[in-house]
Amino acid sequence: MTVTIAELAHALEARSWGDEALEVTGAAEPGATQPAGDRGGVIALAMSPKYAETLKPGCLAILAEGMDPEAYGLRAAIFAPRPRLVMAGLTRAFDTGPDIAPGIHSTAVIDPSARIGEGAAIGPFVVIGADVVIGARARIASHVSIGRGSRLGDDALIHPGVRIAHGVTAGDRLIVQPGASIGGDGFSFVTPEESGIEEIRRTLGERAEIKAQHWTRIHSLGGVEIGDDVEIGANSTIDRGTIRSTRVGSGTKIDNLVMLGHNVAVGEDCLLCSQVGIAGSARVGNRVVLAGKVGVNDNIEIGDDVIAGGASKIFTRVPAGRVILGNPAVRMDTQMEIQKAVRRLPRMAQQLAKLQETVTRLLEKG
Amino acid sequence: MTVTIAELAHALEARSWGDEALEVTGAAEPGATQPAGDRGGVIALAMSPKYAETLKPGCLAILAEGMDPEAYGLRAAIFAPRPRLVMAGLTRAFDTGPDIAPGIHSTAVIDPSARIGEGAAIGPFVVIGADVVIGARARIASHVSIGRGSRLGDDALIHPGVRIAHGVTAGDRLIVQPGASIGGDGFSFVTPEESGIEEIRRTLGERAEIKAQHWTRIHSLGGVEIGDDVEIGANSTIDRGTIRSTRVGSGTKIDNLVMLGHNVAVGEDCLLCSQVGIAGSARVGNRVVLAGKVGVNDNIEIGDDVIAGGASKIFTRVPAGRVILGNPAVRMDTQMEIQKAVRRLPRMAQQLAKLQETVTRLLEKG
Amino acid sequence: MTVTIAELAHALEARSWGDEALEVTGAAEPGATQPAGDRGGVIALAMSPKYAETLKPGCLAILAEGMDPEAYGLRAAIFAPRPRLVMAGLTRAFDTGPDIAPGIHSTAVIDPSARIGEGAAIGPFVVIGADVVIGARARIASHVSIGRGSRLGDDALIHPGVRIAHGVTAGDRLIVQPGASIGGDGFSFVTPEESGIEEIRRTLGERAEIKAQHWTRIHSLGGVEIGDDVEIGANSTIDRGTIRSTRVGSGTKIDNLVMLGHNVAVGEDCLLCSQVGIAGSARVGNRVVLAGKVGVNDNIEIGDDVIAGGASKIFTRVPAGRVILGNPAVRMDTQMEIQKAVRRLPRMAQQLAKLQETVTRLLEKG
Repeated sequence: MTVTIAELAHALEARSWGDEALEVTGAAEPGATQPAGDRGGVIALAMSPKYAETLKPGCLAILAEGMDPEAYGLRAAIFAPRPRLVMAGLTRAFDTGPDIAPGIHSTAVIDPSARIGEGAAIGPFVVIGADVVIGARARIASHVSIGRGSRLGDDALIHPGVRIAHGVTAGDRLIVQPGASIGGDGFSFVTPEESGIEEIRRTLGERAEIKAQHWTRIHSLGGVEIGDDVEIGANSTIDRGTIRSTRVGSGTKIDNLVMLGHNVAVGEDCLLCSQVGIAGSARVGNRVVLAGKVGVNDNIEIGDDVIAGGASKIFTRVPAGRVILGNPAVRMDTQMEIQKAVRRLPRMAQQLAKLQETVTRLLEKG
Repeated sequence: MTVTIAELAHALEARSWGDEALEVTGAAEPGATQPAGDRGGVIALAMSPKYAETLKPGCLAILAEGMDPEAYGLRAAIFAPRPRLVMAGLTRAFDTGPDIAPGIHSTAVIDPSARIGEGAAIGPFVVIGADVVIGARARIASHVSIGRGSRLGDDALIHPGVRIAHGVTAGDRLIVQPGASIGGDGFSFVTPEESGIEEIRRTLGERAEIKAQHWTRIHSLGGVEIGDDVEIGANSTIDRGTIRSTRVGSGTKIDNLVMLGHNVAVGEDCLLCSQVGIAGSARVGNRVVLAGKVGVNDNIEIGDDVIAGGASKIFTRVPAGRVILGNPAVRMDTQMEIQKAVRRLPRMAQQLAKLQETVTRLLEKG
Repeated sequence: MTVTIAELAHALEARSWGDEALEVTGAAEPGATQPAGDRGGVIALAMSPKYAETLKPGCLAILAEGMDPEAYGLRAAIFAPRPRLVMAGLTRAFDTGPDIAPGIHSTAVIDPSARIGEGAAIGPFVVIGADVVIGARARIASHVSIGRGSRLGDDALIHPGVRIAHGVTAGDRLIVQPGASIGGDGFSFVTPEESGIEEIRRTLGERAEIKAQHWTRIHSLGGVEIGDDVEIGANSTIDRGTIRSTRVGSGTKIDNLVMLGHNVAVGEDCLLCSQVGIAGSARVGNRVVLAGKVGVNDNIEIGDDVIAGGASKIFTRVPAGRVILGNPAVRMDTQMEIQKAVRRLPRMAQQLAKLQETVTRLLEKG
């Protein structure tokens, strides 16, 4: 794919400079960018002076506002008002994505009752069950399976090896990375009598006589409901609900190896980073950001706009707008104070011991 | 599937009330349940008064003992002596599970030496290796692979994309959720000379000269042995043993994204929640419950009936029956005390500083 | 496979004893080893006296130097100078690995432009895209997909269900366990205005007005570059880079369910244990060992030869050679002191309270 500097600047809603007819064939880091040829070349991402210093003369580059293209000997430049936002537009322009040939591959096994939207591309060894509905222009890569009655909206991009079970519905523009599982059975079991876990939740740790008991499965009759513009990362797992559906709101992005348990409800425009785990029936508001390895206890509620720092473990309800950190998670500023105090704790123990001695001596004197 | 109120009550070993000839076609939450039609309808799960209040008149419902069906204007009701247990029976009754057509799909690649039990259903693109034995009535969904000589008991349900390597044996009623891997190679490496890890385990942190060394693989000749009634969650991984097998006892349930390392032995009737990791050669007793994100160090032993709270990190042996929490995990009541004290620590540091001043002044006066 | 005692000793560069013409057919734990027959049998791994005591007379065994084969009534023995190293050689000798028939399976879908090396074995339902290059003697198991233009070196072993996207390059002897995903898209998003995360990174927790914003994807144009002798565990995920590639150096071994984010660079000869997560753009040096469940923050640097204990959470730069532990991770010896002090903290709080009383009384007396 090639676009001219002028076209790219237009697409990015940004200002350009220099020879705007040169063609851009891709993007690279400044140090790895070769000078443009007669017709153009790759464009360097040089939005900070530190990176721009490594540019060779004669390159194409994206600069931050206020940087001087002549100082770097550029042939053409585009000015990024908000660099990360420009990155989004630029990388979208050059992302070819996975190869999925148009049409339905001859090896795909598709139930005759399934309805496949116009312009959909379906790769080798895909299995699509009864009554499935796939929207227009969907791209479904190799080895994907989609179970009975599931429905995907328009423009879905399903990477290889994704598992979508029966009874899953998703809006438009769903992206699922390789190996993710949507709609596996919930992890929900019961013992004939009260189990040890139920007992310690009630007694906070005390246990009476321990009895052998077997676990009986509570089956998952609910499905999974996913909004528009959702992305689900590689090898992540979203379990189906018990009676109602597990839910992920529109605009929410989920990273790799994330777990959403049965009946979980996640709101809109959330970011759930890698290895986050949300236990059964927890409710997460809108615009919540959970950093990597955050854990959320079952059945609790996280309010809107909460941000949880890396590896926070959330055991109790979190009010809207709070920024939290730690295990157990508390307000981030409180956690910072605690961490400082904990680091000083060994010294503090010594000071206390010494003070005790001093006071003992004072007492003896007194 | 439909059953009458009378039949469902009988199956659940529960008492029924009202028009027992009405048919039940499914289950729903009280607020989402429509009044029954002439022949019946879905049944509401209304086992607490709070939920039952949202019932419309004319519904079918499951109530807890002691609740009054007339107060909610019901047409029929079933009384649940232990609600979660009734949930198990009810959801089992209505769970259709994944669609796997009877017989062996024409695309499946099955070694002629494999023995497939009577009534087994095998889906598209399944690969079954030499000398594999599959029990009666097994249901094996699309894209599953099963390696040379592995044996599954009767009534297995293997969801799409599961990887079962060679030399894996499992008892009856095994359930494996999508994408799980059973029998990958263990993560076991050795350096020609003592490695840094071996050194710090010996010296507890002190390191002499650091030398460059390459890792040499210790291959995994053992397999995986799984008992009866085991369930393994989506995208979980159970590695094969080095010489003997990695073992999972009967009745143990494993959630999504769980890791069991090589040579691990897990007892019977355990619950291992999502994202639990158990490092190589650790031994876990019977009826142990590890909550989400719990980590178990390699080579240690967890006694019977231990319960570890969410995200506990277990570095040392845990005696039978103990309830633990935290990183490092300690008794849950101790951990609660520690957490309380830690939260007060910044204030305590101030108090100590003030006390030091006071005593200094006392000393000067004295 | 069978070798004689003499041949096995030679392969292990170790000394042998007894009837060196006996054949070895496999390896077992001492207690599970039967006496050798006329031609030989399995060899017991009995490198410590404790294990050797369980040997029956007439066995074959591997002993540690200094142990007496006659005392255990052995027919033949091999002496292991460094037992774990001998394990590596011995297990390699007997590891048959997965069955992948020679040649290319008739069901594989391989783009005509792909170049497959001599002696490669490719299993059922494999999909190989345009311009892919596969080295000599590669073994690619069932259900694997490899995207456009990716290149694997010689002697690769790719287990079932592995996902290799487009633009991934790897050196020789790559091993990938089942279900791993290499080259999924990075988790990188931007909002039109400054997001809450950017804000709290700047203000360390303070947030002004919270505004609703949608996340826009920054696409991943980079690939993944993997050195020689790398191993990647089951269901692990390595995301592609944004502009440059995500990198894994030669000799590095990665366990199951590990996450490497976009742009991450891991050096040579590292060990990354199960459930490790390394966030975007972090740089990890050579010979670094991260134990199970370690988390590394985005954009930070871990020096050469760092060792991080189980479940450490690393938020800031770590200098070369350091041994660290905890959340947040600090030097291991410091962490040990902190943990000791924290366990005593509830008692310390009582002591402080008592001391305050004493000093108050002293003041009153004074």
